[in-house]
Amino acid sequence: MKNLTLQSWRNARPSLGGWISLNNVHSAEAMANLGFDWLCIDLQHGLLDYSDLTRILPAIATTDTTPIVRVAWNRPEQIMKALDAGAQGVIVPMVNSAEDARSAAAACRYPPAGERSFGPIRAALSEGADYLASANTEIACIVMIETHDALERVEDIARVEGVDALFVGPADLALSLGISLSDAPNEPRFQAALGKVLSAARKNDRFAGIFGYSLESVRSALAAGFTFASIGTDIGFMTSAAANALSELRPGRPPESRERHGY
Amino acid sequence: MKNLTLQSWRNARPSLGGWISLNNVHSAEAMANLGFDWLCIDLQHGLLDYSDLTRILPAIATTDTTPIVRVAWNRPEQIMKALDAGAQGVIVPMVNSAEDARSAAAACRYPPAGERSFGPIRAALSEGADYLASANTEIACIVMIETHDALERVEDIARVEGVDALFVGPADLALSLGISLSDAPNEPRFQAALGKVLSAARKNDRFAGIFGYSLESVRSALAAGFTFASIGTDIGFMTSAAANALSELRPGRPPESRERHGY
Amino acid sequence: MKNLTLQSWRNARPSLGGWISLNNVHSAEAMANLGFDWLCIDLQHGLLDYSDLTRILPAIATTDTTPIVRVAWNRPEQIMKALDAGAQGVIVPMVNSAEDARSAAAACRYPPAGERSFGPIRAALSEGADYLASANTEIACIVMIETHDALERVEDIARVEGVDALFVGPADLALSLGISLSDAPNEPRFQAALGKVLSAARKNDRFAGIFGYSLESVRSALAAGFTFASIGTDIGFMTSAAANALSELRPGRPPESRERHGY
Amino acid sequence: MKNLTLQSWRNARPSLGGWISLNNVHSAEAMANLGFDWLCIDLQHGLLDYSDLTRILPAIATTDTTPIVRVAWNRPEQIMKALDAGAQGVIVPMVNSAEDARSAAAACRYPPAGERSFGPIRAALSEGADYLASANTEIACIVMIETHDALERVEDIARVEGVDALFVGPADLALSLGISLSDAPNEPRFQAALGKVLSAARKNDRFAGIFGYSLESVRSALAAGFTFASIGTDIGFMTSAAANALSELRPGRPPESRERHGY
Amino acid sequence: MKNLTLQSWRNARPSLGGWISLNNVHSAEAMANLGFDWLCIDLQHGLLDYSDLTRILPAIATTDTTPIVRVAWNRPEQIMKALDAGAQGVIVPMVNSAEDARSAAAACRYPPAGERSFGPIRAALSEGADYLASANTEIACIVMIETHDALERVEDIARVEGVDALFVGPADLALSLGISLSDAPNEPRFQAALGKVLSAARKNDRFAGIFGYSLESVRSALAAGFTFASIGTDIGFMTSAAANALSELRPGRPPESRERHGY
Amino acid sequence: MKNLTLQSWRNARPSLGGWISLNNVHSAEAMANLGFDWLCIDLQHGLLDYSDLTRILPAIATTDTTPIVRVAWNRPEQIMKALDAGAQGVIVPMVNSAEDARSAAAACRYPPAGERSFGPIRAALSEGADYLASANTEIACIVMIETHDALERVEDIARVEGVDALFVGPADLALSLGISLSDAPNEPRFQAALGKVLSAARKNDRFAGIFGYSLESVRSALAAGFTFASIGTDIGFMTSAAANALSELRPGRPPESRERHGY
Repeated sequence: MKNLTLQSWRNARPSLGGWISLNNVHSAEAMANLGFDWLCIDLQHGLLDYSDLTRILPAIATTDTTPIVRVAWNRPEQIMKALDAGAQGVIVPMVNSAEDARSAAAACRYPPAGERSFGPIRAALSEGADYLASANTEIACIVMIETHDALERVEDIARVEGVDALFVGPADLALSLGISLSDAPNEPRFQAALGKVLSAARKNDRFAGIFGYSLESVRSALAAGFTFASIGTDIGFMTSAAANALSELRPGRPPESRERHGY
Repeated sequence: MKNLTLQSWRNARPSLGGWISLNNVHSAEAMANLGFDWLCIDLQHGLLDYSDLTRILPAIATTDTTPIVRVAWNRPEQIMKALDAGAQGVIVPMVNSAEDARSAAAACRYPPAGERSFGPIRAALSEGADYLASANTEIACIVMIETHDALERVEDIARVEGVDALFVGPADLALSLGISLSDAPNEPRFQAALGKVLSAARKNDRFAGIFGYSLESVRSALAAGFTFASIGTDIGFMTSAAANALSELRPGRPPESRERHGY
Repeated sequence: MKNLTLQSWRNARPSLGGWISLNNVHSAEAMANLGFDWLCIDLQHGLLDYSDLTRILPAIATTDTTPIVRVAWNRPEQIMKALDAGAQGVIVPMVNSAEDARSAAAACRYPPAGERSFGPIRAALSEGADYLASANTEIACIVMIETHDALERVEDIARVEGVDALFVGPADLALSLGISLSDAPNEPRFQAALGKVLSAARKNDRFAGIFGYSLESVRSALAAGFTFASIGTDIGFMTSAAANALSELRPGRPPESRERHGY
Repeated sequence: MKNLTLQSWRNARPSLGGWISLNNVHSAEAMANLGFDWLCIDLQHGLLDYSDLTRILPAIATTDTTPIVRVAWNRPEQIMKALDAGAQGVIVPMVNSAEDARSAAAACRYPPAGERSFGPIRAALSEGADYLASANTEIACIVMIETHDALERVEDIARVEGVDALFVGPADLALSLGISLSDAPNEPRFQAALGKVLSAARKNDRFAGIFGYSLESVRSALAAGFTFASIGTDIGFMTSAAANALSELRPGRPPESRERHGY
Repeated sequence: MKNLTLQSWRNARPSLGGWISLNNVHSAEAMANLGFDWLCIDLQHGLLDYSDLTRILPAIATTDTTPIVRVAWNRPEQIMKALDAGAQGVIVPMVNSAEDARSAAAACRYPPAGERSFGPIRAALSEGADYLASANTEIACIVMIETHDALERVEDIARVEGVDALFVGPADLALSLGISLSDAPNEPRFQAALGKVLSAARKNDRFAGIFGYSLESVRSALAAGFTFASIGTDIGFMTSAAANALSELRPGRPPESRERHGY
Repeated sequence: MKNLTLQSWRNARPSLGGWISLNNVHSAEAMANLGFDWLCIDLQHGLLDYSDLTRILPAIATTDTTPIVRVAWNRPEQIMKALDAGAQGVIVPMVNSAEDARSAAAACRYPPAGERSFGPIRAALSEGADYLASANTEIACIVMIETHDALERVEDIARVEGVDALFVGPADLALSLGISLSDAPNEPRFQAALGKVLSAARKNDRFAGIFGYSLESVRSALAAGFTFASIGTDIGFMTSAAANALSELRPGRPPESRERHGY
């Protein structure tokens, strides 16, 4: 198994990803065909669940796009099931301590490095027993830094062996720091928080990523040193383009569409 | 039952619709929330089927958007099942003769006007027996004009009682006339065909609509006298916006996304 | 294969059935556990489709209840797929002529008696090759008499070899005869129509059945000589009981529930 | 966001709910159309799961009925996913201590009141950013009192900030107290337990509710001061009405409980 | 679009296929990974339907195996929907006349060669507009010869333009000829029938294929000149291997498994 | 309720089971028809989830095969939901201490023996209230011994009341002991580990079982005193038989392992 995204990070090439919030095989396959470096299927806030993964992951595997899964919570069985189904990385939300990070990493690694249970039913489909040899180094374990507590302990978290990357959830982080979503981009405390995550990642040879809430936020994060960023969600792309088309064709009429949140 | 879209046509107010090609409840609900006058769930070329309707129609019914279904073919059971599930109109493909049109219309109307079988299991959910009284006048029967044969017989088709509207499928019509998809917009024969449909509709008090393959095509159709047009598909909106975002963030890199067809 | 319902009809024992309109495995299994002689999964007006059959039929097969399927239309592939999946009988709507009846019967019988294609993937699961020997006599082919035309030709229809039973759809029959649904029970023309179906069945050694629209209608049909009747639908049972419970607990408040149609 | 059920409780108007145990969009929509004040989709003992919510919640949203979800267990991700999908309240089982209650409440509230992660993908569909402002006060956090331990600590539980209501699970509570299900209604210890819950709720300005196991139990609970009660389940309504119909039409025949294969 | 299977036939390389009867994404992907030249997803006798295709076809597209679909019946919308979803060929059952064959071929080809409606939503996902240019020559139109009538008219059928191959359904053909399934392999009339199909194919530059009912039947068909054969079904492989394992471990106990039919 | 498998164990009759990894109703029903004593639906490493259970369990209940579920993790709600849906036993992975075992057992038993919440919606379908009386003794609680830690504490685990059987997961156990999967069968330390589990089971009147990784491993485990063993998985049976068929028909060609896109 070869994780192309992890490989590109290791070669210091930043990468752009998309976010899959919809339970639909075709839209995921279409997104993968657009050339995203990776796609993250979101089992936390997206409207889908494990069973949906088993249908969406093959569709992404028709392309070179790396499939990543955000699990709903830092639970070993959620991480293991996503990996067995063929995810090449997991994004684990709400990792607020070194202990949380150790638990996430252990679920990603086979013994002796960790405690992942063996049964890569789909993951090993094309390579059989070779999967066991490469899985521990080719699966990306990405932990989210998105609370005040996580920020306080970000150095400890970054040090945990088996963690590959830190990923900032800007909406939750802002809320947790008492900053409104709209103020965050221009709020020095928020920018300082991003800098702290970045610095902890660098010091410990981890990669840093962020959920992009606008193209501008992506550009500025990559410029600041983040290695990877998501640039939008399937449903967000759809509704923004549709709302624009309606507005263009109904010039005198105020947009009926409601703003959608980045998260 | 009150069909808001049919009502607006009758009041000479043109309307804009969206096209649902994805089997997903949430994206359909999100599209409906954007303020489309109507949404057409496409069982012909879309990647969905009758069972999916039963989950998508309620999601659209949370809004005032009128749900319409394009059936896969001009078959009575396909039309009747879509209506029983709560569609307020059907778009029937490949209607190439008056006989075809009569068959489509008969499937939309209860006796004595037609031959629709009684059992509006979901359609009558909120109004009960009153549904029977209004269904025959409030269900929109929309037939597609999309072949050379249909164009030849468009007057006969438009005259068939029970047909509410003619709907041009520009891709199929162009192919059938031996015109390439890219040439169609500027091809006089194609423009003449649109004019012929419009004229047949007007003469027989039918509405005329078209599948818009660009914002420009929508504007020009409405200006020419078409009453309704679709302005884009769920998957088309998603992939065009995603491709744009990728292009903006990878300025030096040629777009990997492939052009998608209007149809 | 042994069709217990057909067997009981042949032994002159009338039988009571239920109607499955919901795409749900558990409610079908629960209905089967109540002791219905047969259950009809309704692919015409019910909110379900072929794929749903493949999950519901095994659930009914945990009991002795005979599974029957009403197909959406008189199409050979619809009938054959239902039988392959394990239905022991089909109810075929809108059979309006001897030719329609012959087509329905042919789809139910293997050559030389008919034209059913061989591949009883689930139907033969438990008995293997023996299925072929018994299928032609143990599959019930039930055709619906529900239009003015069908009534005119009911003798011809009843005579068609391979037809086991005639089944009255009272709502469609009434509409087709120009009788309102509420007037039908007390309308002599409607009662005469029922008598005509019954007489045609008897003369040709066919069984007669009816979709019961009330307990009273079931009692009177069985008394008149009908062999089988449905006594209610899954969703109808649910909503009537729920509406009753709400009414009892909100005595001063008018029922909000809307009357549901028999069909 | 406006929670009509919470609003009616705050205005001292008791309310009646229904219980959804079936994974079916249409039956949920039909129940909502009957006028229940709220419907609880049961992910604990019902035969459905998170993915099913994403299809059922829109169907309920076609009416004014308030959608509530009973999660399978007191886990933050289960609560958060139900709320993101559009539930306006959660019923949390097996809350046996103040700590359990705090955990349930924290999952329902955004910081600083709690720890809910931000991403109301469907919940904010119609109102956008306004959702954040109202969610913490309009989401109902309802904890179940259904064990001996919970009863002992009911005062502590009721005091926990963020808890809106206590909900009695009578079957589990009876079993846990060593009382058989059939004895419970007339068992003084059980009645005393109900009184204790009611008193703890009142003292702390919480609402009290109960899972009704009969119409009589609902009447007596409301009379005693409970604010809300469920009055039956979808599958229970269906099977009781169907069993009654069979009994009426087979007067001489004892109710069937036919042998099942396997178990 | 490049149809590798059609290409190998054109290069006179015979090919072996597998049969997909199960609605499951993973088993189809696993079969594709075994190296079958093509897999046929069976919508006629298999327990799956169109919607299932939309999830299974991407899984097969992770490999070089060519995806083919057997439609339930010779209906234009069934053929067109399978092709739009990405099938690279269709097997059309019960083609009993030149007219049947023309209808099948017309549904496979865009105008002017045929009447396929344009909208290759998934089929054109990876190549965009180029699909239109290649589809008419790269889609395999395979018609089944499986009745007495078809055999009589096999020359006429083979001559129809747009037909690529004739495919023998041995079970139906045997039944239709009055030969039992077990006698067929050794029945001269059956062997003569195969020879007649082969000869008609050769004379008209069509390929001939057969549904293999045993390894021996495959070997003998290829030796006789058939270009392609299926060698087993997913469910057949599973149950035969499982029955063997049970027999080996329960030596003294007669096999409980029932023989399964080839079809 | 009568658990035939538990009964046979109690009568000292060993039993053979199959493993269900596929989300498919029909293949599970077909496996059950082959005569397995029990089938284990694997929610840990199989590609299915709770919702799939609700469709698969009825299909198994058409036979005498005992349905068992391996939950994804030792979580009370996972165990309880599987049992409510009709599983007659659970296999609980990663039970590494007496405390883990007590938690698993408590989730299987109603009070006062345990903490299972009452609501056997499908489990009690056929017997009603009698289910409560028999469930605690007829539900099999099977805990997995599959880590170094579990082996160390296997005596403590075996002693926990409510545990019926110990089940060895050989792959995880080998990995955890630092033994490669291929070496395990001939590695004395691995054989000693099996012996230790067996001895702990015997001493405490528990049954011992194992996941068989070959027919030979099953034979040797039963000979050594294990009471039950799985003999293969649905997908494993399918792919091994299909690979064999391909090899036999392509004698000169090495087994394919064609390159896959993406991973």
